Amino acid sequence: MKIGVLGTGSVGKTIAGRLVSLGHKVRMGSRSSGGEKARVWVSEAGDLASEGTFSDAAAFGEILFNCTSGTGSLSALELAGAANLAGKILIDLVNPLDFSNGTPPSLSVCNTYSLGEQIQEAFPELKVVKTLNTMWSGLMVNPGLVNNGDHSVFICGNDPSAKETVKNDILVAFGWNPSNIEDLGDITKSRGTEMYLPLWLSVYGAGSSGVFNVKIVR
Amino acid sequence: MKIGVLGTGSVGKTIAGRLVSLGHKVRMGSRSSGGEKARVWVSEAGDLASEGTFSDAAAFGEILFNCTSGTGSLSALELAGAANLAGKILIDLVNPLDFSNGTPPSLSVCNTYSLGEQIQEAFPELKVVKTLNTMWSGLMVNPGLVNNGDHSVFICGNDPSAKETVKNDILVAFGWNPSNIEDLGDITKSRGTEMYLPLWLSVYGAGSSGVFNVKIVR
Repeated sequence: MKIGVLGTGSVGKTIAGRLVSLGHKVRMGSRSSGGEKARVWVSEAGDLASEGTFSDAAAFGEILFNCTSGTGSLSALELAGAANLAGKILIDLVNPLDFSNGTPPSLSVCNTYSLGEQIQEAFPELKVVKTLNTMWSGLMVNPGLVNNGDHSVFICGNDPSAKETVKNDILVAFGWNPSNIEDLGDITKSRGTEMYLPLWLSVYGAGSSGVFNVKIVR
Repeated sequence: MKIGVLGTGSVGKTIAGRLVSLGHKVRMGSRSSGGEKARVWVSEAGDLASEGTFSDAAAFGEILFNCTSGTGSLSALELAGAANLAGKILIDLVNPLDFSNGTPPSLSVCNTYSLGEQIQEAFPELKVVKTLNTMWSGLMVNPGLVNNGDHSVFICGNDPSAKETVKNDILVAFGWNPSNIEDLGDITKSRGTEMYLPLWLSVYGAGSSGVFNVKIVR
């Protein structure tokens, strides 16, 4: 499949690298094409990898990943262009972290709204699927790193078939057991997964390691 | 031990009942003494149970539980009286749920502040220990109901010895395995455990059961 990854930070590189290893053609997008981080990634990732602007990556991908910063996501998607986004699935794994008052970050939006909803509202023809935003990026693409892969990933979004595609073609391919994929419902459920981040940060802070996740037990 | 339980709702009754079953003397407090819910509970719970005002319960208890509503907690503690609270441990298991716009509730405080912090700031001589607020009340007092009791409970507060007392005398007595008690640090960590509630509500809504919890896996 052709996949566009918006963002060249560590999350974007982790996602893009894993997608290439699964045989997908991946174009990484950033504010300007030819930036150093994107060029280094392409040179290391091989023939399936390419890079360009947000618009280039969005036009290229049949499925898109949002790996930009929380405060930069909406402007990045504006640059990607509504016409390049229309009808496509956007896997949004971003949290609206606000570092303007230092660490730990607060959230730039929460409680009665969420970044997932903001994106869906700004680009109504995009099929926003929020998932993977509750863990360290290394675990997103390799859940087997802890507890033999037996832990939970949440998913939500307004389009049921888009969620099925993400579950089957992306999450299961990354190594997630279908029984551990918790479908929470529509995109308003982004509020819950984004607001989990302060708890994640507290557990991280207490244990000094991000290599953990939660498993829902019943 | 003599324990005061502030609040006569289902959470208060669950906590108070379990404490009596463990042999503690429990006084349940509410806005007015002699209310029907408190009287019924006392008549059912036996000789170790008594009831009175918030002030009566606070004066009685060596350890106190806050089981009031999120929006009513500060006024309940005002009625309990700072002099009755000074130097004592308050186990705060309340979430600042705001139902003024219907369900699902939003939070009346979050992100850069929390109910746990509000209480600690309003009553500086109280030793506020936030715990148990991330699950259905039945699980708080009987973790063995799911996954053989193997799941996580979070705890935070400014006073390390108060947290040790709560861990050893309350949580372990309720059935929690010490290895599943996650100490997050000071009372500011209440933000994380309170902000987890929207995710809890989403999982609850998707599965139509509150009999679940999270386990941190590493």
